[in-house]
Amino acid sequence: MFIAEVVGNVVASRKTDNMDGLPLRIVRKISVDLEPGEVYAVAVDVIGAADGEYVLVATGSTARQTHLTDGRPCDAVIMAIVDTWQTDNTVHYMRSESVSTP
Amino acid sequence: MFIAEVVGNVVASRKTDNMDGLPLRIVRKISVDLEPGEVYAVAVDVIGAADGEYVLVATGSTARQTHLTDGRPCDAVIMAIVDTWQTDNTVHYMRSESVSTP
Amino acid sequence: MFIAEVVGNVVASRKTDNMDGLPLRIVRKISVDLEPGEVYAVAVDVIGAADGEYVLVATGSTARQTHLTDGRPCDAVIMAIVDTWQTDNTVHYMRSESVSTP
Amino acid sequence: MFIAEVVGNVVASRKTDNMDGLPLRIVRKISVDLEPGEVYAVAVDVIGAADGEYVLVATGSTARQTHLTDGRPCDAVIMAIVDTWQTDNTVHYMRSESVSTP
Amino acid sequence: MFIAEVVGNVVASRKTDNMDGLPLRIVRKISVDLEPGEVYAVAVDVIGAADGEYVLVATGSTARQTHLTDGRPCDAVIMAIVDTWQTDNTVHYMRSESVSTP
Repeated sequence: MFIAEVVGNVVASRKTDNMDGLPLRIVRKISVDLEPGEVYAVAVDVIGAADGEYVLVATGSTARQTHLTDGRPCDAVIMAIVDTWQTDNTVHYMRSESVSTP
Repeated sequence: MFIAEVVGNVVASRKTDNMDGLPLRIVRKISVDLEPGEVYAVAVDVIGAADGEYVLVATGSTARQTHLTDGRPCDAVIMAIVDTWQTDNTVHYMRSESVSTP
Repeated sequence: MFIAEVVGNVVASRKTDNMDGLPLRIVRKISVDLEPGEVYAVAVDVIGAADGEYVLVATGSTARQTHLTDGRPCDAVIMAIVDTWQTDNTVHYMRSESVSTP
Repeated sequence: MFIAEVVGNVVASRKTDNMDGLPLRIVRKISVDLEPGEVYAVAVDVIGAADGEYVLVATGSTARQTHLTDGRPCDAVIMAIVDTWQTDNTVHYMRSESVSTP
Repeated sequence: MFIAEVVGNVVASRKTDNMDGLPLRIVRKISVDLEPGEVYAVAVDVIGAADGEYVLVATGSTARQTHLTDGRPCDAVIMAIVDTWQTDNTVHYMRSESVSTP
């Protein structure tokens, strides 16, 4: 999994039948130090993340291991919203309050 | 999934039997800011996208999760045509009208 | 899938039993503009491509979706020989005659 | 698999149901010469590694081949703690004592 | 698959149960021109390769398509020892005698 920020939405009315009703979000991968990067993905959101939230994204066949995405052509899924991100014994991010990297 | 532009076609008369009848399109990956990149793929088009259209491409085993590609040696599939691409609360692309990035 | 040129062969007499009899070819990935790149793979050839031919290669679990590779430790397969490669409404390659990029 | 150092934790209370109870660790990939790199992942720890330990991480569908991760949206798993790392006939790392690269 | 050189070993006594008894080797990817690169992997050796030998490595779910690795959290497997590596109609490597690139 990798940590990403939800940055947008994709609307696609013409798609394979088995993708109907799945919300497609644009996520931007961020580094271990919580710096935004250039890598992004379009992921199915199965938990209802808001714009700007930090989430965990699983990719590949793993993205189909949820009730909503099982058997669908979905190769990236938002499977968690990050509450706390801690490295080197320091909390660098807490949901609803953000602690900047020293 | 990633966003890509359909840029061409591949014809291949000699191929594994179970690929017969599947249209092969060349897609060029574009960035989250809708800039064309160097990465491309050959993808099976199961929804009938036209040249120049923005589409979503799913890869890996995920590409086989459609009726047409199930059980076939297809590792990339065009599974949606993009109607709207919105990041940072701004619509950067709408199908049939294009809004440039500020 | 990606387009590649067949550039060589690998002989391996000592291998897992279930790889016996599968021809192993060296393929060099080429760009959308048909420029040779640095990326290569060893792929199982299930259709009989010749040296120098442009082929399509499928990777990952997808490489096992042919009769010959099913259930074998093969993560790349040559699944088509390219007849025509067309981008931006221009045919850049036709088998047995090559059209250079303008 | 790749070798990585466990560098932190992620807490995520809102996630897909089938991820409940799985510890999420942040791992930083290190090179064959045991130099830390920029690549990291969020991995499920099924063996109880401590911060700072060198571990092996398996990714993709492979990450689901343990009792704890089977059928869950987990695409990276800590599946071993490294005791000894030996290259070029030299032991470069032993658990509980570290031998620096010559 | 890719060609790699076996460069070392990993010992890991604490690991998931279903990895017991599988030898873990460190392999360094080499280029199509047989130059060593920076990419490495930890792979399960199911055929008994020696240090310094050139081998073929399969990755992803493909690495589980052998009797020894089936159902185990193994995402890279040494599935062949290279006898001959030939590109551009020239044999660049033969086992037990090495032919340098012109």
